[in-house]
Amino acid sequence: MGEQVTYSTPEADEASTAGNRLVHFDKPAFDLVYQSHSPAKQKASLFAQMARFNALYMVARAGSGHLGSSFSSLDIVAWLYLNVLKPADRYYSSKGHDSPGLYAVQTALGVMPFEKIHELRRLDGLPGHPDVNTPGAHTNTGSLGMGVSKAKGFLFADELLGNSGGRIFVLTGDGELQEGQFWESLITASRRRDGRLTVVVDHNKIQSDTHVSSVSDLGDLEAKFKAFGWDVVRCNGHDYGALEKIFDFQSKDGRPIAIIADTVKGRGVSFMEHTSMKEGQEYYQYHSGAPSLDKYKIASAELVEDIQAKALALGLKFPKCVEVSIEPLRAPQNSERMVPAYTEALLAEARINSRIVALDADLILDTGLIPFKEEFGDRFVECGIAEQDMVSQAGTMALAGLIPIVHSFACFLTSRASEQIYNNCTQGGKVIYVGSLAGVLPGGPGHSHQAVRDITAMSAMPGMTIIEPANARQVKSALNWAVNENQGSTYLRLTSIPYEQSSELLQSGEFQVGKGMTVREGGDVLILAFGPIMVSQALEAATLLDKKGISAAVVVTPWVNKIEPAWIQAAIGRSKCVVTLENHYTECGAGSFYITAMASLGLLTNRKVFTLGVDEVPACGKNDEVLTHHQLNGDQIANAIFEKLSS
Amino acid sequence: MGEQVTYSTPEADEASTAGNRLVHFDKPAFDLVYQSHSPAKQKASLFAQMARFNALYMVARAGSGHLGSSFSSLDIVAWLYLNVLKPADRYYSSKGHDSPGLYAVQTALGVMPFEKIHELRRLDGLPGHPDVNTPGAHTNTGSLGMGVSKAKGFLFADELLGNSGGRIFVLTGDGELQEGQFWESLITASRRRDGRLTVVVDHNKIQSDTHVSSVSDLGDLEAKFKAFGWDVVRCNGHDYGALEKIFDFQSKDGRPIAIIADTVKGRGVSFMEHTSMKEGQEYYQYHSGAPSLDKYKIASAELVEDIQAKALALGLKFPKCVEVSIEPLRAPQNSERMVPAYTEALLAEARINSRIVALDADLILDTGLIPFKEEFGDRFVECGIAEQDMVSQAGTMALAGLIPIVHSFACFLTSRASEQIYNNCTQGGKVIYVGSLAGVLPGGPGHSHQAVRDITAMSAMPGMTIIEPANARQVKSALNWAVNENQGSTYLRLTSIPYEQSSELLQSGEFQVGKGMTVREGGDVLILAFGPIMVSQALEAATLLDKKGISAAVVVTPWVNKIEPAWIQAAIGRSKCVVTLENHYTECGAGSFYITAMASLGLLTNRKVFTLGVDEVPACGKNDEVLTHHQLNGDQIANAIFEKLSS
Repeated sequence: MGEQVTYSTPEADEASTAGNRLVHFDKPAFDLVYQSHSPAKQKASLFAQMARFNALYMVARAGSGHLGSSFSSLDIVAWLYLNVLKPADRYYSSKGHDSPGLYAVQTALGVMPFEKIHELRRLDGLPGHPDVNTPGAHTNTGSLGMGVSKAKGFLFADELLGNSGGRIFVLTGDGELQEGQFWESLITASRRRDGRLTVVVDHNKIQSDTHVSSVSDLGDLEAKFKAFGWDVVRCNGHDYGALEKIFDFQSKDGRPIAIIADTVKGRGVSFMEHTSMKEGQEYYQYHSGAPSLDKYKIASAELVEDIQAKALALGLKFPKCVEVSIEPLRAPQNSERMVPAYTEALLAEARINSRIVALDADLILDTGLIPFKEEFGDRFVECGIAEQDMVSQAGTMALAGLIPIVHSFACFLTSRASEQIYNNCTQGGKVIYVGSLAGVLPGGPGHSHQAVRDITAMSAMPGMTIIEPANARQVKSALNWAVNENQGSTYLRLTSIPYEQSSELLQSGEFQVGKGMTVREGGDVLILAFGPIMVSQALEAATLLDKKGISAAVVVTPWVNKIEPAWIQAAIGRSKCVVTLENHYTECGAGSFYITAMASLGLLTNRKVFTLGVDEVPACGKNDEVLTHHQLNGDQIANAIFEKLSS
Repeated sequence: MGEQVTYSTPEADEASTAGNRLVHFDKPAFDLVYQSHSPAKQKASLFAQMARFNALYMVARAGSGHLGSSFSSLDIVAWLYLNVLKPADRYYSSKGHDSPGLYAVQTALGVMPFEKIHELRRLDGLPGHPDVNTPGAHTNTGSLGMGVSKAKGFLFADELLGNSGGRIFVLTGDGELQEGQFWESLITASRRRDGRLTVVVDHNKIQSDTHVSSVSDLGDLEAKFKAFGWDVVRCNGHDYGALEKIFDFQSKDGRPIAIIADTVKGRGVSFMEHTSMKEGQEYYQYHSGAPSLDKYKIASAELVEDIQAKALALGLKFPKCVEVSIEPLRAPQNSERMVPAYTEALLAEARINSRIVALDADLILDTGLIPFKEEFGDRFVECGIAEQDMVSQAGTMALAGLIPIVHSFACFLTSRASEQIYNNCTQGGKVIYVGSLAGVLPGGPGHSHQAVRDITAMSAMPGMTIIEPANARQVKSALNWAVNENQGSTYLRLTSIPYEQSSELLQSGEFQVGKGMTVREGGDVLILAFGPIMVSQALEAATLLDKKGISAAVVVTPWVNKIEPAWIQAAIGRSKCVVTLENHYTECGAGSFYITAMASLGLLTNRKVFTLGVDEVPACGKNDEVLTHHQLNGDQIANAIFEKLSS
């Protein structure tokens, strides 16, 4: 799902010298409500609003996170946790990105230490998308459509092992239901007669950034579930009376139940509610990303007012807010962003070449395609959350004479649609695949989104050229080459976060197939860096190595699997040691392509070579802490190189 | 889909010294019928039976191929080609494996040279599953569920390019509708109002080897399509009157149409028709594989009788059969098969460890799981044609305390469910993945089935150990290790065709993690071979190299990504040249793992290394010709090595 990060700017942040002041409730405030003798519905209503308040805090503090879905599902989640779930039951969200809301409820109830509310999307804190290592998380979600499959695994195991028959509640999104795996999973599930499986569809009508119905109308959702052999019931997902009844519902024969809960995305804060969108307004603003400080203040004030009123009505003391001061998130100086550069490049190409069409899978805001859609509406295909479908469509568009460019996050595009990409490759026909959000950063979403195996996934794809541009200029050159010169298919790997530009790189030569550029000279070791983040770290490492008396060259190339032998040979020169550095798993990543090439060119006699990159499942956290955790900041890279040379 | 190959045995084949005698109709026979003034329905009926006759010939000659589906769909296909399709229209089969039937119709109508009927599943002949390089093939299919996505791509391109508005007819299977991508693709398709898209479901009630309803009941198929916004009609797929009406049907508003055609799998030959299965008979016998010679004779005789009667009724001369004599297919001497060995190994483990459960995706005959299902019915989960669902179920079964073992063809398991495997890996929980039909052989099915990038797909999967056993004994050892010793997940890559056993390998030592065995000593070059086919070729190559005065060692290891440094160092010894040899793409295959390891161990100074394996999309053909085409027979390997050493 969309992964917007909100950066403060000095202009917008009046109190920037003092930091942002955010507010939350502490645990005793929730305990007071939980332990009160208030009637269940009113208690849940108050509790849920307080949870929204804390979820807002968590996301504002983290600088990113999904409020719209957290808020739309919170009444359901609060009701379940307060009144329905028994010890043997399992609840989890298949969509996963509503985690701030879930965490707010779970921390309030002591499922995990309350202090974790300060650590959303922080290292060793609460991951951006659910991970089993977090207390209360049954399974890893964030990559959509897997929830019912996972439930079937649990149910089968419980039965076989003779475990007690708890219920499983799976929350899904509605856009999520565009994923094929969801329907695939309903089929054998419909044969169950144990009364244990319930899906709740958080039907908030907005997926990612726009209306579900305009993306890919779910049509008659009830008819769909029924046709797949499930029982279906429907209710207002914010009406506790209705929720109470609906969770009591039992199907006659114990078959699985789908509860379609009509909800409002962003419920609880007036301007975040999707029903407050203006006529003709196409894009919902609060799917992902922290609100600006101004909006945050208005939102918390609204919630406080409602919470106060509810507490009063229940005769409870108004729960006190705790104020916290934090540093606003600032974009790096001299920073550049690839996606806007890509947007410009795409428009430029499309204006010249009318065969170019762009396909998207519900990430139009993140993939930078809004301007393309506005200028070339009939050449834009919104496929919904359906990567496999999107890729197969692109394959035949290519056969029929168009130049289809397919967009999604690198983690999903290359992995969900791997077989479809291969089918396209065996078929011929040129398709351009653009995967953004590449690498371990941003670190906030967590490993479901941190793409560190997309290069591997696009390897051994016949005819595929893999390019990882190192700056905005290379993005444009790469797209131009992919469209106009490459006969075959191309995969462009784009970094989505802002990064510091390298002036050395800007001065380097023209874009030539299979060739990179030496941006820093040095004789003792050669760092071969891929992508803007690693280029930045490499240059920093080289400066640090200088101080240790080691002269490090830095070579940058956007070409992952096209390597011009004469160039690499010249670039390596007489270096005794080569280090590849990538924002990707080292196993079968860019580095391994270069090692294999160097081996076959005989360039490894009398020369050491080793790879640096990601060596374990990506950690979730702020960008700096994630880079450090993975030993990939400039300092750590310099030390690793120093130690290798000394050994 | 299942890929059975029928081998003759001397006992079964009475005329073995003379070869098998097969019969087919020639083109003039079809021309006579096509050009006759017979009424349309009777003409089609006769034509279709003649096409069945030729399809039977093609499959019998090839030794493999899918008769059941070819026969069930043939009346539909014949009617479409004879009476419906216009020049601008497109027809293709999404399931793909009914290609013999399609080819029989297409050759009869001159879509491609008639002589191609002798070349089903032969190099440069007619591929086992559709490929765009074959005249009359619009797109590559064989990997299920992509048909409607592909249609949308064509339709969109046609509109944008202002091409004429032909119709698109997509044939699907019914088991195929278990694939999530199919439902995913229906959603945006339902918004079309151009009256151009028609899906025909060949609802023959049997998928692969058993009843659809027992695998994964499609339930109310009409209700499903309607719920997804399509128009639905239904008919008897063997009734030409009904077919005539149904293809005339137009939806009121031009939305896509789904025609559910009730058919009989194997229609046209009494004992092949699924309706002739005995009460309680679970497995259909004619999904894939050529019939025995005896069955072939009975089948052709039945068809001839019916064809004669139909021709007579139309006042046409009975079309003459042409007889062809061919060599029966024989299994190699001294051959061994991995899948039966795996079956035994699995049973042995399962009898000791009750936490072992097996999951399958409609390939129970091919994956060797029938005995497991019979002995441990409650521990067997048939998931239907739903690899993503299967893998995600396994992940939570593992979390819940079971040891799930997931089975499918390597090409599908690792590629369709890549994201789900990754999700499992980040989640922890031990899952064993078993991919059979690994490598370029059998060559008959074509590239949709020839798994040559499964190792790549399973790379960069945290915690995954990849093993490619080289013989049956290693299969058992590997499974034992995966179940009892490995804490993490394992991928076992199995060859499905029979192969010549290596006595040298049988004599080698015990199974140790990260270590292989030297099966042949030699000083000039070292061939590191993976899998039974390549081991066999390597030993042959070594013998040939001897004659050229080159002493070649052959080292075999089942470990792809676990490499014991001391062992590989010792095994390499003082060899000046190392060649890796694999039944897989060389890009990011097993060889590249070893090159990277050798590089980091400093074993590449003063040593050449190069990889041999598959370097282009796999060719379709008989096993021998495919190996030769890819330069992977013993002779070619010996030459390649010789040339490298000389250069």
